[in-house]
Amino acid sequence: METTGIQSELSLNTDQVRKLLVGFLRDEIRNTGTQRAVIGLSGGVDSALSAFLSAEALGKENVLGVLMPYKTSNPRSQQDAELVVKALGIQSRLVDITPMVDAFVSTIGDVERIRLGNVMARQRMIVLYDYSVREQALVVGTGNKTETLLGYTTLFGDNACAINPLGDLYKTQVWDLARAIGVPREIVEKQPSADLWEGQTDEGELGFSYREVDRLLYYMIDERRTPDELTGMGFSRSFINAVSIIIRKTQFKRRPPLIAKVSHRTVNLDFRYARDWGI
Amino acid sequence: METTGIQSELSLNTDQVRKLLVGFLRDEIRNTGTQRAVIGLSGGVDSALSAFLSAEALGKENVLGVLMPYKTSNPRSQQDAELVVKALGIQSRLVDITPMVDAFVSTIGDVERIRLGNVMARQRMIVLYDYSVREQALVVGTGNKTETLLGYTTLFGDNACAINPLGDLYKTQVWDLARAIGVPREIVEKQPSADLWEGQTDEGELGFSYREVDRLLYYMIDERRTPDELTGMGFSRSFINAVSIIIRKTQFKRRPPLIAKVSHRTVNLDFRYARDWGI
Repeated sequence: METTGIQSELSLNTDQVRKLLVGFLRDEIRNTGTQRAVIGLSGGVDSALSAFLSAEALGKENVLGVLMPYKTSNPRSQQDAELVVKALGIQSRLVDITPMVDAFVSTIGDVERIRLGNVMARQRMIVLYDYSVREQALVVGTGNKTETLLGYTTLFGDNACAINPLGDLYKTQVWDLARAIGVPREIVEKQPSADLWEGQTDEGELGFSYREVDRLLYYMIDERRTPDELTGMGFSRSFINAVSIIIRKTQFKRRPPLIAKVSHRTVNLDFRYARDWGI
Repeated sequence: METTGIQSELSLNTDQVRKLLVGFLRDEIRNTGTQRAVIGLSGGVDSALSAFLSAEALGKENVLGVLMPYKTSNPRSQQDAELVVKALGIQSRLVDITPMVDAFVSTIGDVERIRLGNVMARQRMIVLYDYSVREQALVVGTGNKTETLLGYTTLFGDNACAINPLGDLYKTQVWDLARAIGVPREIVEKQPSADLWEGQTDEGELGFSYREVDRLLYYMIDERRTPDELTGMGFSRSFINAVSIIIRKTQFKRRPPLIAKVSHRTVNLDFRYARDWGI
């Protein structure tokens, strides 16, 4: 019965959301004067779904998928990314980031794996943004709401993008929509992993499952339930506290840099809306 | 007489602003649970001023300056950065970014100079953010209001930071404050340059001087003057139009990625204030 509860709270009208996200990508990308998208394809479900939505919005000829393995990446990641390319018939490029990452390591010295993971994610950003200029294409993001709220991303790395169709969908919802839109089943069903080191899984690293935390996040953030209400719903006090602390500690990854206010109009405080600001 | 006008519109009470910015850095950095700062020192006046303010806020022992030359960088840039290190007595590191940048070029192929400049700025970001983790220090930004409004920055490169004391000061005001706080005169007085290729100067690339554009930006953004008022003040219609277009076209560099809204609470739209959100 619990599981049914989860499903209904986070369940999507996948037809409606698909239409909304496809329209969002089409309108907002064309508004910028281009009609092309570039997406880093990791082999995971998030980037696969972003690519499916982008191809539907812009046409397959306007989407470029970039595969960026590192020497320690699981070969399956690249195979799954190639599945997406084939399923959609989009253009793709393969860029081995090993020389760039290893040049960093040989310059800086030994780097432990979390820091190395950040370097990998940021070297990929550099490649994508270079394609963005070369191809006059916008970088379409692949970060979902769960990883965004938990800060389970690399700032200026995998979370760097121009536009993100998935940022308001929990991981559970990404799975549902991916299934509905036809992302290959082996991609939807595999264990999520950032593939930054061998055997890494998201859920192992986070210490809880996406299904559990999505349900908590939904009630905590979307429904603004109090801790007492949440414990009344069966969430443990320690789980609530742990997730709350993670959210607060990672807020810097979700907000623009803090700028000291000196004048009447400060960028990102009083001056935000250039789009509506014409002369 | 024109020049006197400029001075008075953009003139700062440097004592007051210095106090405000030092307090801002001290309070906001300590709020995050650290008291250390890391700053990329380019040899230019902006990063010099950020370093001076940070050292005053946190103590020289808590500020790390990182010098990151590329093989084509002007040797004077590094000398001027070393001047800042000596004047303040802060710690410093020298990291040659040439191997990382050249690994990118040999992977991607020939890259024209604007794109190469972006790669350099982003490789520097990677180095600074790695120091940020290693040293438990916040990356203090160096971007001023002029370059921010004109988008004369590399997204996820030199504009990447945790906190920025200069983001609400026009370049003209940076010069005044830098002079008042004791930044070495040769740094304040030299021609501003991103030093991304030989002979590059900001004003040559932009096509107008900082003094001219700061005055226009002040009236346009801070004072919200209309085009007719601006032309009445002596600004040419073509200058006003050119600057307006630049501001609109570069808005994406000043705002977080656009996220498709699906739920009641979307990151950066309805969910912003984790700092005030306790459980």
